[in-house]
Amino acid sequence: MAGTLAFDEVTTPYGHSGRMLGGSATYLSFAASLFGPKTGVVSVVGDDFGDELLDKFRRRGIDLQGVQRLAGHKSFYWKGYYYENMNRRDTLVTEVNALEHFDPRVPADFRRPDLVVLGNLHPAVQARILDQLDARPQLIVLDTMNFWMDTARKELDAVIARVDLLMLNEEEARQLTGEFSIITAAKHIMQMGPDYVVIKRGEYGSLLFHADAVFMAPAYPLEVFRDPTGAGDTFAGGFAGHLSRYESFGFNELKDAIICGANLASFTVEDFGTRRLENLHRDELRERMRKFVEITHYPMLERVYE
Amino acid sequence: MAGTLAFDEVTTPYGHSGRMLGGSATYLSFAASLFGPKTGVVSVVGDDFGDELLDKFRRRGIDLQGVQRLAGHKSFYWKGYYYENMNRRDTLVTEVNALEHFDPRVPADFRRPDLVVLGNLHPAVQARILDQLDARPQLIVLDTMNFWMDTARKELDAVIARVDLLMLNEEEARQLTGEFSIITAAKHIMQMGPDYVVIKRGEYGSLLFHADAVFMAPAYPLEVFRDPTGAGDTFAGGFAGHLSRYESFGFNELKDAIICGANLASFTVEDFGTRRLENLHRDELRERMRKFVEITHYPMLERVYE
Repeated sequence: MAGTLAFDEVTTPYGHSGRMLGGSATYLSFAASLFGPKTGVVSVVGDDFGDELLDKFRRRGIDLQGVQRLAGHKSFYWKGYYYENMNRRDTLVTEVNALEHFDPRVPADFRRPDLVVLGNLHPAVQARILDQLDARPQLIVLDTMNFWMDTARKELDAVIARVDLLMLNEEEARQLTGEFSIITAAKHIMQMGPDYVVIKRGEYGSLLFHADAVFMAPAYPLEVFRDPTGAGDTFAGGFAGHLSRYESFGFNELKDAIICGANLASFTVEDFGTRRLENLHRDELRERMRKFVEITHYPMLERVYE
Repeated sequence: MAGTLAFDEVTTPYGHSGRMLGGSATYLSFAASLFGPKTGVVSVVGDDFGDELLDKFRRRGIDLQGVQRLAGHKSFYWKGYYYENMNRRDTLVTEVNALEHFDPRVPADFRRPDLVVLGNLHPAVQARILDQLDARPQLIVLDTMNFWMDTARKELDAVIARVDLLMLNEEEARQLTGEFSIITAAKHIMQMGPDYVVIKRGEYGSLLFHADAVFMAPAYPLEVFRDPTGAGDTFAGGFAGHLSRYESFGFNELKDAIICGANLASFTVEDFGTRRLENLHRDELRERMRKFVEITHYPMLERVYE
C-alpha cells in the first residue's frame, strides 16, 4: 500500500471535523488490515505526525518500515468543503509539505508482494515504487485523480501502462479519455494498459470492466452519510483485503472484492474521517455483506427469462 | 394505464428529434403491451393526433376506448433541451392544450383492472380515474413529478394516500419529503400511504422500499444513450407488464418487475422518442435480461461471508 499519511479537515452538511487523521495510505491500510493479510505502508510524514498516530497503525498489525519521517517538515494537509449532496466538493487548502520531498523507499520485506495498491500520489512517485519491486505482484492496482491528469499527464500515462487495474470515478474516467460513455471510456483505458478498470460511482455502486465483460455492483444504501472523505481509499483497501482471502485474482474474485470494498466504504462515510473505520468490528462488515446479498437478490427472474 | 398522449421535441447532445410521438401513456402502454396483457389507455388528444398514430397503439393490441378526442384543440406538446450529461434538462415549451380540459372517463371494460398505472397527470385527474373504478385493483402505481409538488400539493397528497406504490426519482423524493437521505425519504412516503416506494435513479438503477426492507437493482450499462425522454414511463410500463406474468404482486414479484422495467427503459434511451421501443422485439428484451443476470451475478460471495 502506498499513499499519503496526512491530516484532513472537512466541513460537510453534518458539521465540521476539526483536524483529523487522513490520507490515502491511512484508509487503504486500515481497510485492508481488517482482513488479516500482512499489510505494509510506503509513505512519508512530517514532525507533526506523532507516535500516538503511528501506534494506531501498529496496533492493527500494519508494517511501517516503509514510512519515512522528514525532519523539519509538516505532514500533508488538506482542507475541504462538501456541498449538500456531497457529490461536489471544494478544496479550501492543500499544503503539500513533506510530500513534496517524498522519495519512496520500498523496504526489502515489501519487495515481493502478492498485491500492490498505489494510492493517490504523483504518478512519478508511484512509478518509483514499482521500480523497486523484485518480482511482479499478481495484481497492481492504481488509484489516481484528475489533478494528475492536469499536471502530470505523461507520467500518469506511463504508470497506467504498468498496472493491472485502474480505479477511478466517472468524471475522472471521462477526463482521462475524453469519452462521455463510461463503457467507451473503460474500453479506452484498457487499451492504455490495464486489464481491468473499476469505475467508482459512490452511493450508486461500481462497475468492473475486463475485456468484453462488465460487472455491476450496487452500493449499500445508507441512511446516515456524514463525510465522504476516504470512501474511495477504503473501497480500494477493502478490495485488496478481500482479495487476500483468495489464492489467485481472476475476474470472479475481483467481482466479490469490489462488492466488499464498497460495503466497507459504506461504513467510512457514516462518520467523520477514520472514526467509524477505526472502530469497526469484522462482524459488522460480515453482517452488512450478508444484508447486501439479501437486498440485491432477485429470486425469480431467472425462471421467467430462461 | 393513464397519462398523456402527446408530441415531444427534444435536443440532446446527439441531435434534434423533430416533432415526435410522446407522452407518458404512450411509453406506458407501448412498454406494457410487449408483455401481452390486456392494456387499456385513459387519455385525451387533440385534432392533430391522427389515426395513423392511434393505429400504432391498436396494432399493439392496446385498447383506446378510454381516449377522448377534443375537437378544436391541439394535443399536449413539450419541447425540451438536455445538457451534456443528460441528468439535467430545461423545458423550452409546454403547451397544455387539450389536457387542460381533460375530464377522464374510464370505460366500463376498464373498471375492474388487476393493476392501474397512473402516469404523470394533474393529481386531481389521477384521483378522478380511481373514483370510477368498480373494484380495487391488486396494485395501484402512481407516477408524478416535481411540477405537481409545487402547484397542487394538497391534491397530490390526497392521491398518494390512495395508491399502493409511488414511483419517483431521487430529487422528487427529496422535494416531496424535505428529507435528504433517500432511505428516510422513502420511509416518510410510506407513512403518507403507499406500501411501496420505487426510487428511480436513471443509469444508476433503482431502489424498491417496502416496510423495513429494501431492494437495489442496478441498471444495464449502456454505451449508446441518445435521449432520456420516456425512460421513466417505459420503466413503469415494463414494470406493470412484467407483473402481469404473475398471479399476485408481492415484494419478490415487484423486485423482478423493477429490474425488468429498468432493462426495458435501457432500450428506449438508445434512440429518440419511441423509435427503439416501437421496433423492439421481445427476444431482444429477453436477451438483455439474460445479460443483466450475468453481469450482476457474484458467484462466490455467499461462501466467504456465510
